[in-house]
Amino acid sequence: MSIHSVKRIQSHLAWDNSIPPAIRIKSGESVSFDCLDASNGQITAISTTSAISSLIFAQLDQVNGPVYIERAEPGDTLQVEVLDIETADWGWTALIPGFGLLADEFTEQALKVWSLDKAGWYAWFDAAKTIRIPLRPFAGEMGVAPGKTGAFSTIPPYNTGGNIDTKHLTVGSTLFLPIEVPGALFSIGDGHAAQGDGEVCGTAIETPMKVTVRLTVRKDKSYVKSPQFTTAAKSSQAVDEEYYCTTGIDSDMREATRSAVRHMIEFLGVEYKLSSVDAYMLCSVAGDLRLHEVVDMPNYVVGIMIPKSIFVNSPTR
Amino acid sequence: MSIHSVKRIQSHLAWDNSIPPAIRIKSGESVSFDCLDASNGQITAISTTSAISSLIFAQLDQVNGPVYIERAEPGDTLQVEVLDIETADWGWTALIPGFGLLADEFTEQALKVWSLDKAGWYAWFDAAKTIRIPLRPFAGEMGVAPGKTGAFSTIPPYNTGGNIDTKHLTVGSTLFLPIEVPGALFSIGDGHAAQGDGEVCGTAIETPMKVTVRLTVRKDKSYVKSPQFTTAAKSSQAVDEEYYCTTGIDSDMREATRSAVRHMIEFLGVEYKLSSVDAYMLCSVAGDLRLHEVVDMPNYVVGIMIPKSIFVNSPTR
Repeated sequence: MSIHSVKRIQSHLAWDNSIPPAIRIKSGESVSFDCLDASNGQITAISTTSAISSLIFAQLDQVNGPVYIERAEPGDTLQVEVLDIETADWGWTALIPGFGLLADEFTEQALKVWSLDKAGWYAWFDAAKTIRIPLRPFAGEMGVAPGKTGAFSTIPPYNTGGNIDTKHLTVGSTLFLPIEVPGALFSIGDGHAAQGDGEVCGTAIETPMKVTVRLTVRKDKSYVKSPQFTTAAKSSQAVDEEYYCTTGIDSDMREATRSAVRHMIEFLGVEYKLSSVDAYMLCSVAGDLRLHEVVDMPNYVVGIMIPKSIFVNSPTR
Repeated sequence: MSIHSVKRIQSHLAWDNSIPPAIRIKSGESVSFDCLDASNGQITAISTTSAISSLIFAQLDQVNGPVYIERAEPGDTLQVEVLDIETADWGWTALIPGFGLLADEFTEQALKVWSLDKAGWYAWFDAAKTIRIPLRPFAGEMGVAPGKTGAFSTIPPYNTGGNIDTKHLTVGSTLFLPIEVPGALFSIGDGHAAQGDGEVCGTAIETPMKVTVRLTVRKDKSYVKSPQFTTAAKSSQAVDEEYYCTTGIDSDMREATRSAVRHMIEFLGVEYKLSSVDAYMLCSVAGDLRLHEVVDMPNYVVGIMIPKSIFVNSPTR
């Protein structure tokens, strides 16, 4: 079976069902997309922090496509099998003022450029090589065009997908999206080499990416009203290993989440001597947010869990 | 080293620093607690649904203790190592009107009594033996007395712990709690044989439990302001396996969570023919809530992830 391709330049900056298809395919065919990073090429491997102040926000979070899938009709479900992902050999993580779970507390811009060891599937967090992040690449944006007329920002996620930033959508996973327009009009982008559940600082390890997916129209899954997925057995999930978890407890779920992250930043500062900016970024790329308890009112318990194995010299703390 | 013990009858129904200690121990000593289930013995292995309507709510969620630990002072941290847990050979899961994440949608009471195969570490969800829940027992309540004067309900969790209902606190894990009164005044209860992150229907597999913990005063962890913990390598975490996940996407984090659970209940109904009550209970004992994305404003993405391996006859759906 032939593999179709969508080029870097075939990208768009809004979810809008009036954007003409880049290509048309049959249901069940595969497509390879060549995607710039979420900065749309504005940040490169040699960028410094000043690159954040000159970012043109209207150019961020482009997606490649759209792909028109024949026979796809509103009410059907689009099955997206993630077949292959290749990242660049570099990536970036940033604090962008006004963006992120603790945006009010982290008001200064910051940029970290990573070297990605693709062969070893790890990236070192620090120059001293004491913290090693496992790379589990996925596409932060996968979506289909909305049924509603108009141009909708690619920043928020919608029931039709888009910027769902879900770390579990690695190679071997399958995503299901509700189709709202004829042809579905699928697009993809926002390469991430690693991210925790939450993406708390607002960015992951952002990277250019080549990604191949198989797109199949499903007429039998009409209950899919927002993104659903099956995970791969090996690549996205926690392996059997030890975690350290800090919790936040509050009557507001979002405040409990913020409190949990604050506590982890403090823990990483005291126990691992990380600056608060480094700790916040580390939470974003390697910490998983879980809702431990959502029923013992009036208080929620939210935890952020960091795998101890990333600390290669002192895993047992 | 001797192991102290706290009996079933040595329980209390509020967090209150005026409750006299059941026992006094030295830092670093171990204590075994014999705990009734969270119904305080009101539900038994032969109960039927009518037991829910006659529940005396003021008797629920008792905890055993308190244990006075010598040398513990306000500002210290209590280290709680979970050494051993033994459940009964039965348990229960209920829908209690007014309680649970979807309380407004599930208004009828329901009770499910489980037979727990302790040797095999599994419990069958259904009579036909098609759904098998792995047992990973833990104590839903672990806490210390508050510094504030007064009697505080044992239903909500607090920064001093209590009903944190955190599934990761299995044997081999270590919990840290901030101490607010001399002696710490530690208590424990609410045995759970299995639960997912969230405990969405309001109950887990509730069960009587014998639990042994080692209690140590830590003077070096003053950054612990709410519960923190390290997990065991093997028992609480997801193993490498496949999950099915439904998401909820909303500008309100709690509504996104509710939407994710609703979608899973519908999925389980369509694909596995479960009633909505059964599906809701299954989400509570085996589904994990994760915050996939909390930064792409205005919309959050929350997922509930169910391991496919619990469906023993059709794991690949």
